[in-house]
Amino acid sequence: MALDGRIAGHGIGALKDGKPPDETDNANYFCEYAFLYHQMDMLEDEHRTGAYFNAITWNPESFKDKVVLDVGAGTCILSMFAAKAGAKEVFAVEATDMAVRSRKLVQAQGLSHIIKVLQGTVETVTLPSMVDVIISEWMGYFLLRESMLDSVLIARDRFLKPGGALFPSHATLFLAPVGSAKACREKQQTFDGERQHFDNFNCTMMQYYGTDFSCMQEEFLEEQRKYYLQTGMFVNLAPKQLAGSGSPVLEIDLSTITLQDLKDSAKPLRCCMRISRDSQLEGFTGYFNVTFRGSTQNPVKEVVELTTAPTTKTATHWGQQLFGFFPPLQAKNEDVLECQLFIKRQKKNHRLLQLDSAFELCRESNGKRFVCQKREDTWYVD
Amino acid sequence: MALDGRIAGHGIGALKDGKPPDETDNANYFCEYAFLYHQMDMLEDEHRTGAYFNAITWNPESFKDKVVLDVGAGTCILSMFAAKAGAKEVFAVEATDMAVRSRKLVQAQGLSHIIKVLQGTVETVTLPSMVDVIISEWMGYFLLRESMLDSVLIARDRFLKPGGALFPSHATLFLAPVGSAKACREKQQTFDGERQHFDNFNCTMMQYYGTDFSCMQEEFLEEQRKYYLQTGMFVNLAPKQLAGSGSPVLEIDLSTITLQDLKDSAKPLRCCMRISRDSQLEGFTGYFNVTFRGSTQNPVKEVVELTTAPTTKTATHWGQQLFGFFPPLQAKNEDVLECQLFIKRQKKNHRLLQLDSAFELCRESNGKRFVCQKREDTWYVD
Repeated sequence: MALDGRIAGHGIGALKDGKPPDETDNANYFCEYAFLYHQMDMLEDEHRTGAYFNAITWNPESFKDKVVLDVGAGTCILSMFAAKAGAKEVFAVEATDMAVRSRKLVQAQGLSHIIKVLQGTVETVTLPSMVDVIISEWMGYFLLRESMLDSVLIARDRFLKPGGALFPSHATLFLAPVGSAKACREKQQTFDGERQHFDNFNCTMMQYYGTDFSCMQEEFLEEQRKYYLQTGMFVNLAPKQLAGSGSPVLEIDLSTITLQDLKDSAKPLRCCMRISRDSQLEGFTGYFNVTFRGSTQNPVKEVVELTTAPTTKTATHWGQQLFGFFPPLQAKNEDVLECQLFIKRQKKNHRLLQLDSAFELCRESNGKRFVCQKREDTWYVD
Repeated sequence: MALDGRIAGHGIGALKDGKPPDETDNANYFCEYAFLYHQMDMLEDEHRTGAYFNAITWNPESFKDKVVLDVGAGTCILSMFAAKAGAKEVFAVEATDMAVRSRKLVQAQGLSHIIKVLQGTVETVTLPSMVDVIISEWMGYFLLRESMLDSVLIARDRFLKPGGALFPSHATLFLAPVGSAKACREKQQTFDGERQHFDNFNCTMMQYYGTDFSCMQEEFLEEQRKYYLQTGMFVNLAPKQLAGSGSPVLEIDLSTITLQDLKDSAKPLRCCMRISRDSQLEGFTGYFNVTFRGSTQNPVKEVVELTTAPTTKTATHWGQQLFGFFPPLQAKNEDVLECQLFIKRQKKNHRLLQLDSAFELCRESNGKRFVCQKREDTWYVD
């Protein structure tokens, strides 16, 4: 599993804090995690915190007397679960100043003898030994936004013993067809309003300042289209809004995927979504599951799953990402929506995503299958 | 006026684009200006664009056959005003990719022979000659947020001929006492709600996960206090909300102020605000004027002023900044609110401000003046 010129065991030595993140990466990304309100937002997501709690405390044999690494520990809540489940030693790595607070918290729980908080990026810390288990809550919107899984894989390659377990161990990204979505119609209306806005703007500039901005119209509409129509929306969908069930488009085994696989999108991902009722497809949604199975050599006794799928119960803080079809597709019961998807990282910020997609709505008629509508679109997960 | 090791005339040579901004500064600040919607927001501010238009076109003798430098040109609207007012040559310096668009715009107006768009920071461009006039719209919230005046002063020291003019030439920051401000009461209520929020949060953490977060309560409230109570609010106040007229706390002559003066706040700024009716002072507000007077050697014929003071007419896009007194001060007609203010730059981001203040509410009684209430507070302009 050695990658990127890293050798398993590299990074072993006297316990040492790491380096702070790159300054721009900090401004774009890490800084938010230094706020307690943000940590509390995540802690209060009962699906999230509950799933990790269950995965750890229902499987004490996976933690008893084990050495554990917590990547992106935040308040150290997962480290504390691991310590209470019997871990011998927990290295909690946190890049932001939340590390200072989590040391206090760990001490207040009387767990300082087990949990060592290291401030710095996991790429730069030094641990005294390899670890049996890596725990981490790395998932972002659309599973991969934030690109934090990179750090978990690097930690795995640097510090995880052969046969060691990752919590979670598996992740799946699903796509599902969306029938009715007011949010998509509203975005379309707002975008349409921006055409009028530009015309009014240009009239004003001509009339008052004798300046003609009409050569900017296309670029302005392009900018607005990207913002309103091509950017994934945070939503909490009800299951009844789906026009068919979700279909897995990406399945990740955290123990085997390489950093290269994760970054590389030479081949498109594919999935087929079966439409289960005649409907106007206003868009599609992306959500994910992660499961805690332990490793092949050390499987857990109780498998736990965390899902961010549309639900009638309380939503997770991830919600779902919704991408609109403008205009909607006209689908019939038993149609199949085929998708080819490239998930790329944005050039200006590697923690944000760009989705290049091709959709085909396929139908059977008189025993023959044909493509009745096609779409090629780019979307952004900002 | 040479500063910071810069010598007047340094930066003169063959016309050359400059360097892009520092990556972190770009992520924190510049990037926003690369969007047309943001440029349009500013252009549509009729007070702003109209004031520059008037200042330039009403004073053609200040521009006729002159060489002009536009610092942070954006869409080049000011450069185009200057060109139309008779400028011989305009160097429009813009750090973001808006430079690419403004070249198109300039060409569409048939002004490419006069306006040369340079992409890069003004600190790093090379101009073929010194200039007669510098035009720039550098003002941020509370006048100084964004710290863009730094770049104008550096441009002045590098490129402005002796006796040359700055447009605008003067800026004044005012403070005014605010009587009734619903926004302050709402912030206080939200902050109060966060106390209850923390208690609920901690109960949940104890009950479900056996983890006691109470040692974080003070830090959480501190964080929330800073966010809700100590951060300036963007508002558009009506004049009737003021409990007295505005008082100048900082007056800047752009032709003489040094970069050091601007950054240095060894001595506090001071002002006295006279209260004009019995009132509960819920806060104070900051707003600014800039005036276009040309230079001492080359004064304009028509002085133009741009103000962001509370008004019953349409507001500027700067609005005013509102800072709350929690709890309010109890003031009487003819009281004087004395203020000592340090305007500092935030350590984590030099474009944002920290205000350290001391207020004294002074009253005369039986011919004697006494301080009836005191406040010392820190506020942030984020």
